[in-house]
Amino acid sequence: MRSESKRLYVGEVAIGDGAPISIQTMTNTDSKDYESTLKQISELESVGAELIRISLPDEESVKVFKKLKTKTSTPLIADIHFRAEIAVLAIEAGADKIRINPGNIGGKDQVSKVAAAAAKRNIPIRIGVNAGSISDDLRDQDIPLSKQLTLSALECIDVMEKVGFNDIIVSAKAFGVQDTIETYRALSKSIDYPLHIGITESGTLESGSVRSSVGLGILLSEGIGDTLRVSLSADPVHEVHVAKQILQSLEIRKFHPELIACPTCSRCEVDLIPIARQVEKELKNISDPLKVAVMGCSVNGPGEARLADIGIAAGRGKGVLFIKGKPVKTVDEADFVDELLKLIERDE
Amino acid sequence: MRSESKRLYVGEVAIGDGAPISIQTMTNTDSKDYESTLKQISELESVGAELIRISLPDEESVKVFKKLKTKTSTPLIADIHFRAEIAVLAIEAGADKIRINPGNIGGKDQVSKVAAAAAKRNIPIRIGVNAGSISDDLRDQDIPLSKQLTLSALECIDVMEKVGFNDIIVSAKAFGVQDTIETYRALSKSIDYPLHIGITESGTLESGSVRSSVGLGILLSEGIGDTLRVSLSADPVHEVHVAKQILQSLEIRKFHPELIACPTCSRCEVDLIPIARQVEKELKNISDPLKVAVMGCSVNGPGEARLADIGIAAGRGKGVLFIKGKPVKTVDEADFVDELLKLIERDE
Repeated sequence: MRSESKRLYVGEVAIGDGAPISIQTMTNTDSKDYESTLKQISELESVGAELIRISLPDEESVKVFKKLKTKTSTPLIADIHFRAEIAVLAIEAGADKIRINPGNIGGKDQVSKVAAAAAKRNIPIRIGVNAGSISDDLRDQDIPLSKQLTLSALECIDVMEKVGFNDIIVSAKAFGVQDTIETYRALSKSIDYPLHIGITESGTLESGSVRSSVGLGILLSEGIGDTLRVSLSADPVHEVHVAKQILQSLEIRKFHPELIACPTCSRCEVDLIPIARQVEKELKNISDPLKVAVMGCSVNGPGEARLADIGIAAGRGKGVLFIKGKPVKTVDEADFVDELLKLIERDE
Repeated sequence: MRSESKRLYVGEVAIGDGAPISIQTMTNTDSKDYESTLKQISELESVGAELIRISLPDEESVKVFKKLKTKTSTPLIADIHFRAEIAVLAIEAGADKIRINPGNIGGKDQVSKVAAAAAKRNIPIRIGVNAGSISDDLRDQDIPLSKQLTLSALECIDVMEKVGFNDIIVSAKAFGVQDTIETYRALSKSIDYPLHIGITESGTLESGSVRSSVGLGILLSEGIGDTLRVSLSADPVHEVHVAKQILQSLEIRKFHPELIACPTCSRCEVDLIPIARQVEKELKNISDPLKVAVMGCSVNGPGEARLADIGIAAGRGKGVLFIKGKPVKTVDEADFVDELLKLIERDE
């Protein structure tokens, strides 16, 4: 939360000036395919996406977008590259925000055209700079990438401001975590527009989760970032899960119970990993931010997890359910998950 | 790298005083089972574990440990709870380092006994405090958990120093990322012993990777941490992968080529996610720290990934191989991965 930033609205979602840091993701279906895109939007909503972005490459996809807008109350953001006229059409079709990359939208006149259309409908524009679309002028300068990205974003902000458009959200993403961090640190010092943060093209679920968590974790811990997207080469549902987990780890927002699970060692007498995975899956359907522990040994378990609200400590064939470190009931191994969930639901 | 910390050695692995931040993990087999533990040690070595910890609960596991020591050159750390005499036996069996939790080893006399044995064999001891084993005295004080953890670590350091033992590595882990960060910040200011960092009981592969990446990423970016373990309720092989990825994300160490993969969108005309996953898997066998891109569109791909050393931009049925953003060859979709790897191997 940067309390000093400007406040904007994307649909009814507030961004900036201390608003909860919102989670966005992006569909990866064919935007011309109404059915599959609608299905994905609904999946993303069900896991907690608060803003959904859709890439619109052509007129046909804008038509589908217009139809999708009538089917969801989640704000939809149109992601536009190359063609300013598509951005204008998307705005007229009801986009709640437009994302353009100033490096490829066709110069100042085109940016102005998009800004005029957005102003008319009173929606914000995200200036989405990334390392791949820095102007040749800047790229040729012997300055660090983070400096190039920062200057590229500031140039485009300047163009917008000159045509009187100020409802701006800014992003400037690189693949490099350090480059990205340095860029956002510089931007957060020099502008008061809300910042959309992310590590671009960060990789698969496995590596991209780590890269995004490291980069966004550092930025968020410094109070930088008003809305975020975790970019993964994976089902975008995972982008939402990882984003929630990042925010929850830093106690910035709370979504689900947290799972405390011991990493298992020689003292563990049950097959704990599948139990932990199953419990974690079930916890995603529960909104109470409890701390739930799944521990592999009944001797240490309750004590080590005494900070958990509710937990189970597994022993050989049996487990001990505990509340705040105090054992309350012994249950059979086969009933571990069910009994634990029963206890959680009672608490909820 | 905290250049101001003391330098210690675990086997031949240097820790502290600017040494590369080393990656440790822990076996989760039955330590009494020689075969399965040896097999896991060998798997962990093959993915790059630099220090391997084994929990030794009893005399029988120490006997197995002694045999394991003759089979590997990777330093082995004995993890001991409750029984100081087991720690002494493990030291005599050749442990390269002992980890004890002062809260459960049985008081000052027992700590002194372990310290004397370690001094005789000239090996370091890690004081491994965690949130579950803080003394009742400290726990009853109305101070934050991070302060309790810090004081608990300092108390035990004091006991060690009083018996003249100074080869100490310190950890103080909590499940809470913020608690852990605050604890290590305090410790790094007040002591110059190397710090072993980690988020304890951080969860499954999915949630634990995020929690560990956020917490360790922030600490490492502040220069805190000399060796680390990512604790996951998962195959410990993943602990090593995630640890490497964290260090590599921050450009602290480099292990493998980095995969730049676009998150795919409506413009993507191929099934990119499995291709990205396959490439990522293959890259783990390559040690050259190249940047490799797998992009979903042949129009933007090479440009967006111009900072990659080598990449492929996939189009409909065909793909373009590129080097530093310049297309060099068109290949069929079926040959994407093979052709990309050929190019990487040539570069290596």
